[in-house]
Amino acid sequence: MEFFYCKNLVFEAENLLDENESIHLIQVLRKKIGDTIQVTDGKGQLFEAIITKASSKKCSIFTNSLLKKVANEFSYELHMAIAPTKNIDRFEFFVEKATEIGVHSITPLLCEKSERKVINQLRIERIALSAMKQSGSLFLPEIKSLTKFAAFVELHKGKRPLICTCSGERTLLQDTIDLKSNNILLIGPEGDFSAKEIELSKAAGALPISLGDKRMRVETAGIYVASIFNMVHQKNQ
Amino acid sequence: MEFFYCKNLVFEAENLLDENESIHLIQVLRKKIGDTIQVTDGKGQLFEAIITKASSKKCSIFTNSLLKKVANEFSYELHMAIAPTKNIDRFEFFVEKATEIGVHSITPLLCEKSERKVINQLRIERIALSAMKQSGSLFLPEIKSLTKFAAFVELHKGKRPLICTCSGERTLLQDTIDLKSNNILLIGPEGDFSAKEIELSKAAGALPISLGDKRMRVETAGIYVASIFNMVHQKNQ
Repeated sequence: MEFFYCKNLVFEAENLLDENESIHLIQVLRKKIGDTIQVTDGKGQLFEAIITKASSKKCSIFTNSLLKKVANEFSYELHMAIAPTKNIDRFEFFVEKATEIGVHSITPLLCEKSERKVINQLRIERIALSAMKQSGSLFLPEIKSLTKFAAFVELHKGKRPLICTCSGERTLLQDTIDLKSNNILLIGPEGDFSAKEIELSKAAGALPISLGDKRMRVETAGIYVASIFNMVHQKNQ
Repeated sequence: MEFFYCKNLVFEAENLLDENESIHLIQVLRKKIGDTIQVTDGKGQLFEAIITKASSKKCSIFTNSLLKKVANEFSYELHMAIAPTKNIDRFEFFVEKATEIGVHSITPLLCEKSERKVINQLRIERIALSAMKQSGSLFLPEIKSLTKFAAFVELHKGKRPLICTCSGERTLLQDTIDLKSNNILLIGPEGDFSAKEIELSKAAGALPISLGDKRMRVETAGIYVASIFNMVHQKNQ
C-alpha cells in the first residue's frame, strides 16, 4: 500500500500534511474525509491515519494506530558530504540512488572548484522523499543545506571523516571502512578537491581515500560509496 | 588528452572513423589533415594516429605508434543481462554508470513482465562509448542486442549465472561472488522476473540471489552489482 510522509508526526493527534503530500492525496488519489491512509514520520514509524480535513493544499490526518516501528534501518550510519554537480540532474540522480541504497544524511558541499554554487533545497528533499517511498523504506535521509567545505570540516573535526580524492597518498576505501567510526565521507566537485582543501581536512583529522583505479564522475563515486557501505554492512550482520 | 574510438583498429594502416567520431573530430574540434590524434580500439590499446582524410562524416586516420597496451582492465569479468526500464533514461543511466565502474558486456533482456520491448541499440552503444572516454578507460563494454530471457538462459546453460530476484529462496550476492565462475548476472524488469522464468533459469543451473533487504529500482540494482564486483575485485588484487 502506498504511504505518505509527515514530518514531526505525533501519535493519536491531528497532524498537518504539507502541500505536496496534500495535493497527491486529494487531487491525484481523490481521497476524502474519513478515508484511511498510511503515513510515516521518516524515522522508522508507520501509522494508520484518518483524513480529517481534505483541503487540496492542506490536509489534516488523525493518527490512530501504529502499524510498524523499525528501530534502525541499518547497523551502520553513513553521512555523505558531496559537491553538487554542474548538471543538477546528475546530483539529483545521486540523491535518488543513495536514498534507495541507504544513506543517513546528505550535505551538499560548496568547494573551491565547485561550478555549481546554488541548489534548490526543497527539490532535493522531494527527490529523497520520493525515493524513500518508492523503495518502501520508512527512513528519510536528512538533506542538509549547502555547506562550505571549511565549515563542514570544522564541524566534524576529530571524527576522522574519509575524503575521496584522485591524487596524493591515499588508502583504498574498503581497507578503511570501519562502520563504527568512519561514517562521514566527503566527495568533491568535478576537478576534485583543491590541494589546500585536502591539507585543511587532513589537519582536522580526515583520511584521504581512493575508490580504486577507475575515474568516476562525482555522482558515480557517491553511488559507489553508498553501495560499498551497504554491502559491507550486510556482510557484518 | 582526449582520445577517439575506432572499432577493429589496425596498427600501421589506414583506418576509417565512424560518422559520430568524424563529426566530433572535424566539426567540433576542427582538426585537419596531418593533425595528430590519439585513438583506442576499446580493447586496451591506445595509438597515436595522423588524420589522412578529413571529411566531416568519414575521416581516415593512419595509426603510426602504439602509445599504451593494457592486457586486462580487471582481474575479473562481469557480464550483465538486464531488462531495459520503461523510462529509457534510467536504463541509459545504468549503462553509463556500469561502464564507468566496470562491466564487460551488457545484454538488454526481454522478459515476461518487460514493459519496454524495443531499444535503440546504437544510442546505447554511444552512451557506453561516451562513458568509456569520459572515464579515461581503454575498454568498451560490448552492448549485445535485445535478447529474449529464455534464449539468454539457454546460451549460458551450465555457466551458473546469478539471477537477482526479490522473492523465494535466495543467497546474498556477496556470499556467492566467485570472480572466476559467477560472472554472469541477470536483473529483471520492474515487477521482477516471473516465477516461470526463475524456474527456467534454475533448471539451467542459475542461482537465485538477493541484493539485501532494500527494494531497489532496476537501474539501481545494476549499478549496485557493478560496484560490489569492482570492490571485491580490488580487495582481491
